[in-house]
Amino acid sequence: MHFTSTQHLDGGVLERGFALGDIPGILWTPEAASASAPVPLILLGHPPLGLHGMYPRLVTRALHSAAEGFATATIELPGSGERPGWPALDNARADLRRAMQAGETVSGEIVDSLVLPLVDRAVPEWQAALDALLSLPEIGGPVGFSGGVISIGIRLAVVEPRIVAAGLFAGSLVPRAMFEEARQVTIPLHVLLQWDDEGNDRQAALDLFDAFGSKEKTLHANMGGHAGVPQFAGDAVTRFFTRHLK
Amino acid sequence: MHFTSTQHLDGGVLERGFALGDIPGILWTPEAASASAPVPLILLGHPPLGLHGMYPRLVTRALHSAAEGFATATIELPGSGERPGWPALDNARADLRRAMQAGETVSGEIVDSLVLPLVDRAVPEWQAALDALLSLPEIGGPVGFSGGVISIGIRLAVVEPRIVAAGLFAGSLVPRAMFEEARQVTIPLHVLLQWDDEGNDRQAALDLFDAFGSKEKTLHANMGGHAGVPQFAGDAVTRFFTRHLK
Repeated sequence: MHFTSTQHLDGGVLERGFALGDIPGILWTPEAASASAPVPLILLGHPPLGLHGMYPRLVTRALHSAAEGFATATIELPGSGERPGWPALDNARADLRRAMQAGETVSGEIVDSLVLPLVDRAVPEWQAALDALLSLPEIGGPVGFSGGVISIGIRLAVVEPRIVAAGLFAGSLVPRAMFEEARQVTIPLHVLLQWDDEGNDRQAALDLFDAFGSKEKTLHANMGGHAGVPQFAGDAVTRFFTRHLK
Repeated sequence: MHFTSTQHLDGGVLERGFALGDIPGILWTPEAASASAPVPLILLGHPPLGLHGMYPRLVTRALHSAAEGFATATIELPGSGERPGWPALDNARADLRRAMQAGETVSGEIVDSLVLPLVDRAVPEWQAALDALLSLPEIGGPVGFSGGVISIGIRLAVVEPRIVAAGLFAGSLVPRAMFEEARQVTIPLHVLLQWDDEGNDRQAALDLFDAFGSKEKTLHANMGGHAGVPQFAGDAVTRFFTRHLK
């Protein structure tokens, strides 16, 4: 990992672009973080729409987290943003778009072909990013994972023991196979559900919440569509991480 | 209303027993509350099991609320505690107990006969208590309702305009008729659901949440049984009231 840019943001936050091999990423740290006062880390998940377009929402989450003493980091997903194209992913996306525009139920095949390869490719990359980030002296642990593609969060919660708590957003299409993995999750979970999420199957989200094996799991359902998560619901995610990472 | 007892609790909280006609009640106020600095009020709901037995849980909620600057108050429900017996309520309770012990589904008739008369009798009493409490110089407004029999909370939210926010506990049997009233609720709601509540129909609770007409409504589902609400979930209720009553 090497840093590609440095920027000082308001509120005493350092934003650094980095490259992990050919994967771009961003790291935000409270300026007060140091080798003698390392901070916990939250990995910021996001949909496969490119870091550039997601930046405004990511930096908002990063600044909130920094104010509570957390470093945050994210990396570009495979096939997204400036990373090399991934025709299979593009085809699956196009199938999804067609089905949704036609008002059809999105088939399990489309969901599987879109999400499962993404999870398989992305998760080892997030683990590699974790290796690199935790080698920085100003970043200690423990580590949380927050938001983005919920299936990536589920897989990471199962396979990555350094992640001790996860805030998940029940707002994406979940392959049936991930329900089995969900049963293997045991870390504390905080799950957000937008009750009227236009692109989400509410019952599937509730079933997924039920499936998680964690003894501590909390569902916060709020009114509004996919992008309408209220500010107080975001604050509650931060408090969840404060409870588990501090 | 006249006060029947006064006690100073730790944390600068004044506890006063009162009688509203023949209805006993308890009022907790931060000692700092005064005519020149009146505080908002939260009505503390509870199940029809008698104030005496419920006291430990009520005083815990009262002390938490007082620390955030709220007065809290509660009154005995009709047919409970030291109030005159109510044979119809006792019969309905006995029917409920028999059905639950036999492992039968509790019929709509039992639920209706238990809850609807209780709502009809209790709600005007809570409104009378509100009249009396709001006439005290150290209590201002606005007013919230928290917990207890959810159907009482629903009816109060519909008929009592002085109640501007409600924290409801989706853990009691709800007559079908209350679903219609739920659609008429428009105040902000914070609904707690214990995911594995042994005495509760989870799907009915989710349907009820869906039915509420409020634009701001949040469901917090946590693991554990009826009495296992985690501390952090109680804290979130207090934050909800802070957001809406301050």
